[in-house]
Amino acid sequence: MATTQVAVKQVMNVGAICGSLRKGSYNRGLLRAAKQICAESKEFEGMKIDYIDISPLPMINTDLEVDGKYPPVVEAFRHKILQTDALLFASPEYNYSIAAPLKNAIDWASRSPNVWADKPAAIVSAGGGFGGGRSQYHLRQIGVFLDLHFINKPEFFLQAFQPPAKFDREGNLIDEDAKVRLKQVLLALQTFTLRLKGKC
Amino acid sequence: MATTQVAVKQVMNVGAICGSLRKGSYNRGLLRAAKQICAESKEFEGMKIDYIDISPLPMINTDLEVDGKYPPVVEAFRHKILQTDALLFASPEYNYSIAAPLKNAIDWASRSPNVWADKPAAIVSAGGGFGGGRSQYHLRQIGVFLDLHFINKPEFFLQAFQPPAKFDREGNLIDEDAKVRLKQVLLALQTFTLRLKGKC
Amino acid sequence: MATTQVAVKQVMNVGAICGSLRKGSYNRGLLRAAKQICAESKEFEGMKIDYIDISPLPMINTDLEVDGKYPPVVEAFRHKILQTDALLFASPEYNYSIAAPLKNAIDWASRSPNVWADKPAAIVSAGGGFGGGRSQYHLRQIGVFLDLHFINKPEFFLQAFQPPAKFDREGNLIDEDAKVRLKQVLLALQTFTLRLKGKC
Amino acid sequence: MATTQVAVKQVMNVGAICGSLRKGSYNRGLLRAAKQICAESKEFEGMKIDYIDISPLPMINTDLEVDGKYPPVVEAFRHKILQTDALLFASPEYNYSIAAPLKNAIDWASRSPNVWADKPAAIVSAGGGFGGGRSQYHLRQIGVFLDLHFINKPEFFLQAFQPPAKFDREGNLIDEDAKVRLKQVLLALQTFTLRLKGKC
Repeated sequence: MATTQVAVKQVMNVGAICGSLRKGSYNRGLLRAAKQICAESKEFEGMKIDYIDISPLPMINTDLEVDGKYPPVVEAFRHKILQTDALLFASPEYNYSIAAPLKNAIDWASRSPNVWADKPAAIVSAGGGFGGGRSQYHLRQIGVFLDLHFINKPEFFLQAFQPPAKFDREGNLIDEDAKVRLKQVLLALQTFTLRLKGKC
Repeated sequence: MATTQVAVKQVMNVGAICGSLRKGSYNRGLLRAAKQICAESKEFEGMKIDYIDISPLPMINTDLEVDGKYPPVVEAFRHKILQTDALLFASPEYNYSIAAPLKNAIDWASRSPNVWADKPAAIVSAGGGFGGGRSQYHLRQIGVFLDLHFINKPEFFLQAFQPPAKFDREGNLIDEDAKVRLKQVLLALQTFTLRLKGKC
Repeated sequence: MATTQVAVKQVMNVGAICGSLRKGSYNRGLLRAAKQICAESKEFEGMKIDYIDISPLPMINTDLEVDGKYPPVVEAFRHKILQTDALLFASPEYNYSIAAPLKNAIDWASRSPNVWADKPAAIVSAGGGFGGGRSQYHLRQIGVFLDLHFINKPEFFLQAFQPPAKFDREGNLIDEDAKVRLKQVLLALQTFTLRLKGKC
Repeated sequence: MATTQVAVKQVMNVGAICGSLRKGSYNRGLLRAAKQICAESKEFEGMKIDYIDISPLPMINTDLEVDGKYPPVVEAFRHKILQTDALLFASPEYNYSIAAPLKNAIDWASRSPNVWADKPAAIVSAGGGFGGGRSQYHLRQIGVFLDLHFINKPEFFLQAFQPPAKFDREGNLIDEDAKVRLKQVLLALQTFTLRLKGKC
């Protein structure tokens, strides 16, 4: 019966986290593009990408944990992560590793109880050189401890500074090939999430 | 009906690969112990660990590929990997990375078509220092390209040279705590394999 | 002549940076111990360890750079790094990588002009598991871009939570074996620094 | 006196090792180009690049060590490494890490006494994707244990499969930009080697 089918329709909340705090961040631009692709493509029915802001978080310091409680902005952030079914990281490469703001968000949400545990995840990056690649392998190692399940393929690296322009002045992704590749990442994340839930 | 139930019972073939060629290898000892634990514990009904020997493989050289065919020992090895449902790597640490023989086996089986693709896997190590730990993170990065799905937890590192003795003279695991931890790795691999197959 | 000898005596300023902001940080305890060892041992005549505080730094965000200038606390931090002859990092392991506060400090001081460039460095860590080891290899990769020259040996990992107690209640190092190993790190850093300066 | 000057002229023997056994290997092509650049440029007077063949080495197996002796081909290889003042690795990327033949050569020469110890080194790579980049970071971690001192900059990655052609049919480097970059690597290795010897 149609009504029943609607009732059991799969809902998938993907939390999108950007490692850069810069206003015009290309990596945040990737997340906006991902959100739009997800909203506009039929294949993603029931899947929703929500941007989770990490900029209010204080620098990690466990002395800020009092009576087993985290600062309110940390609690709020942790709650949002807990609500997700999967994660999409936009990970810029700073000095051959992940950016400090992203590491900071990861460290806060890993505090007991670790709210990243057992979630599927994907990583996208824009940058020079390897297009952010080195940060992704460090992030994957971090994920072993967090118990994140990263998709293996496709990997997404975007060489942001090679012509033609990949982003407009506001940091919006304008490269069509990159959009196609980004969609493939989302499809793989969707499939892997369903598979880990035992629903495909 | 009982007969039918037996017929559909889950069978899980786990290929066990040791990165060391040394006769008395402690890492191979871990695989023997794993095989025995698997054979003796009720929880592993239907799961079978088969040792896959990598010692006959020639050093990787794609000039040895003729008319799209690999040398016979390579073809045989690749066929065995293809038959597995999951993999158990015993990865010694040589010079802060994985051992050459293991990398060689991996490289051969990655040649087109990559026979590692989409298989769940676990890693165990015995050694000094971090108990083989550094090799495991390199192996995990390799697994991204191979499209292996490693379990995150528990990780298994065994400090082989700290008293009391962990292995007997023939390289058999005699440490009871290590056996318990090894069983937990096998249980996690079993669960993750079933989960990725959509059967739990 | 004595006056001349004093005039040419080697002076070596080592900047000590702790990746944890926690008041009772064991890693900061390692730096205090290093400073004391350096001050008390004849071998380190002319070498001085100065603690450089990273806690005032804001989270990295290049939007905070205005007219090519960094925020005053960042400028002050960068100036201190620039004045050093060598660096001693106390790097705790958070989630299998370096701690966010340390990455943040590194990221700020790497901004143009990179003030880490061409400096010798050593890393010490205290922690569970591998005693902070995983963080050190990520830090070493970061150092390739920063153009830091890390000593290779001895590496210093301290398993902080294994009996007997390694630190007192204030986080001061009380383990004699660790102090001996710490001294060896300082000697190696001193030698490597002189060697890179062409003075030994 | 001229005779004396000749006698004290700096001689620098650089051992060149290629991680691929393939006849037409692009990575070996990089080493041939490096050798030629070194022989033809005035800046490299006294510096000589010698190719060290790793293809005869058996797969690492410490059971092959008898009475503290290594197999003759291993002894010969180890002796050649020992004679070098610096090392130039051509490191192809196989499955996101270093190639098995290179790891094998490294493992053999690391056996006691470790003949890599305290040598300066540089890495060059040709390949798809990151141009061999992932293999270099694994090699650098390996170098910590080997006690190799890698130059940090410039790094050399060559995207071998992007037009225009970088190599001719015999695997000889024909890309002029790559040759310029390769020369810069050699200059940096030369400078770092002299610096570590206390001669600049």
